[in-house]
Amino acid sequence: MEGSQLYNFKEQLTIKSKVKDYYNLNFIEDLNLTLTDLINDVNNIFVIDNNVSKTFNFNIIDLLKDSRIIYINSGENAKTLNYIQTIIENLLNLDIKRNNKIVAIGGGVTQDIVAFISTILFRGIDWIFLPTTLLAQCDSCIGSKSSINFIKYKNLLGTFNPPTNIYIDIKFLNTLSDADIKSGIGEMYHYFLPFNVEAAIELNNKYDDILNNRNILIDFIFKSLTIKKKIIEIDEFDKDIRHVFNYGHTFGHAIETITNYEIVHGQAITLGMDLANYISLKLNLINHNEFLVLHNILNKNLPKFLFSDQNIKEYIIALSKDKKNINTSLGCILIGKDNNVKKYFIKIDELLTSYIFEYTKLYSI
Amino acid sequence: MEGSQLYNFKEQLTIKSKVKDYYNLNFIEDLNLTLTDLINDVNNIFVIDNNVSKTFNFNIIDLLKDSRIIYINSGENAKTLNYIQTIIENLLNLDIKRNNKIVAIGGGVTQDIVAFISTILFRGIDWIFLPTTLLAQCDSCIGSKSSINFIKYKNLLGTFNPPTNIYIDIKFLNTLSDADIKSGIGEMYHYFLPFNVEAAIELNNKYDDILNNRNILIDFIFKSLTIKKKIIEIDEFDKDIRHVFNYGHTFGHAIETITNYEIVHGQAITLGMDLANYISLKLNLINHNEFLVLHNILNKNLPKFLFSDQNIKEYIIALSKDKKNINTSLGCILIGKDNNVKKYFIKIDELLTSYIFEYTKLYSI
Repeated sequence: MEGSQLYNFKEQLTIKSKVKDYYNLNFIEDLNLTLTDLINDVNNIFVIDNNVSKTFNFNIIDLLKDSRIIYINSGENAKTLNYIQTIIENLLNLDIKRNNKIVAIGGGVTQDIVAFISTILFRGIDWIFLPTTLLAQCDSCIGSKSSINFIKYKNLLGTFNPPTNIYIDIKFLNTLSDADIKSGIGEMYHYFLPFNVEAAIELNNKYDDILNNRNILIDFIFKSLTIKKKIIEIDEFDKDIRHVFNYGHTFGHAIETITNYEIVHGQAITLGMDLANYISLKLNLINHNEFLVLHNILNKNLPKFLFSDQNIKEYIIALSKDKKNINTSLGCILIGKDNNVKKYFIKIDELLTSYIFEYTKLYSI
Repeated sequence: MEGSQLYNFKEQLTIKSKVKDYYNLNFIEDLNLTLTDLINDVNNIFVIDNNVSKTFNFNIIDLLKDSRIIYINSGENAKTLNYIQTIIENLLNLDIKRNNKIVAIGGGVTQDIVAFISTILFRGIDWIFLPTTLLAQCDSCIGSKSSINFIKYKNLLGTFNPPTNIYIDIKFLNTLSDADIKSGIGEMYHYFLPFNVEAAIELNNKYDDILNNRNILIDFIFKSLTIKKKIIEIDEFDKDIRHVFNYGHTFGHAIETITNYEIVHGQAITLGMDLANYISLKLNLINHNEFLVLHNILNKNLPKFLFSDQNIKEYIIALSKDKKNINTSLGCILIGKDNNVKKYFIKIDELLTSYIFEYTKLYSI
């Protein structure tokens, strides 16, 4: 039974942080009970993603009668300082004080906006997060980061400011499209391949079932967060070892750039990992068999994307503009022996281009 | 000799911080030497207060030929998110990268703007501070705070983000008006009365000399910072014990409000302390003799300000709007036995009004 499986999941995480000392993550079963508790605390003000309020039947709305709720846009283009100023004005209209907490209900964009505001309003107020997307539940909800766009620069601005409490209810996942689920699975793979390959294999085995029964995801969400927790507790501010989580992201971001973000993030990352692994193979960091094991895991989650002579050129240009590059060398995370990941700087030259070209001929779908 | 006094001052401070682990403060003697070092590091971009560049004869300007300098407005009305966006655009035009550092040269407003930008740009970049006002040198340069205004709300937004290095050259103080010096002295008194009353007495004794010879201030700056360091290392994020530094500020801010900030900050704080001490006297926290000792220290630095029947009413209204109030009780720091300071909540009522009225009849100048 799906229900009973859920009710037995009592795991929780406590994450150490330099910003907040520590913060707690709980998997919850009864969303209404948690919401009622949060509503009963008169210090809480709710910031809710417009889409969530449309797709999920919230008792909270009846209970609050709109008096302590702000609905926000959750498109990528909402992540601007101007929109943030609008939301701060709305919060001031609700007479927000420094002892209030903001309860954010939504996905990554809602998280980015509320985390950023909670850093700068009154020099920091507490916030609570109920992530509603798989990406937010399995990845972004911990790790303290917020990201705001500035003019043409994506995620140029941001802060480190974790919530005090995170409540994950996987029932939210039933409101998501298959593409949203595939996006989350991509991020989970990027934690599992280097740090828990058995989980990656298991996730791959259950891939088709998951799309029909999202409850299965709870265990994988917990495993993803457990991996991330270990690293962010050591390097919360992303100065050093946390860089390993860029695995797949350098090659994935360039895919997103040339496709104008039409491919969902996690699937672009999946392709990014497969491509990074092929570079590892060509650099003799892994052998062909090792590459194939990883490729067979990633394969189902690869996006429908065909490299062409034209877009490979655009792709190399996008890679050459990556923020992590040093001069003409691409800064990226590659996998090696025993699936260990490490930072490498690879010359962006004809050879790299030929590797990518070769990959696309063999594996592009 | 002024010169030799300076050259023997080799004190430095290392301040522990949750944001930056620790940061260093040095008193420097040869500004040009330090500037040359900072210029030679090609990673440094300079943000300099317009006024400083006018009043101080900078070799830096010749050396840099404007290629890595941004000049900024340092009026209180520059502290907005819109102006901050303009400065970020200017920094991007200089091709700023995450490994660059911003060197801020100016007073409190320059500090606020650069500290805020350094928090949010690339989720945090390093910055270095050369404070040029007495207020910034003796107080704000350590403690991590930045403050930004929002619509009509003063200092509503802000962050905690200390510089990595602070270099204090007291030669900057020669460019300041007497009012600027008196403002700084007010903040120094607010550290000295509770935590080093001998320094307060000494500062009072040297008051007139200081206005003519600002070099004398170096020792008092060091003593102020030493007091502040102890508390901010315990409570950097101002959640608890750091509240004692609101001593004089609750009563002082209300003076600033009703005079529309015509009185310099530190002198308003001086009056705020004297008034707070009078409340302490009326509440039997100190005796009349203890009040007089403190009053005689503060007396010379009191602003020229006459309470009247009309502005006392405005004053009480301003006090009643203080952010630290709980309902109709004024949250403020009062001095008690052995000059210990502690937070109190005082009913804003006829009795408090009568105390303030009584004070103004006896001590208003």
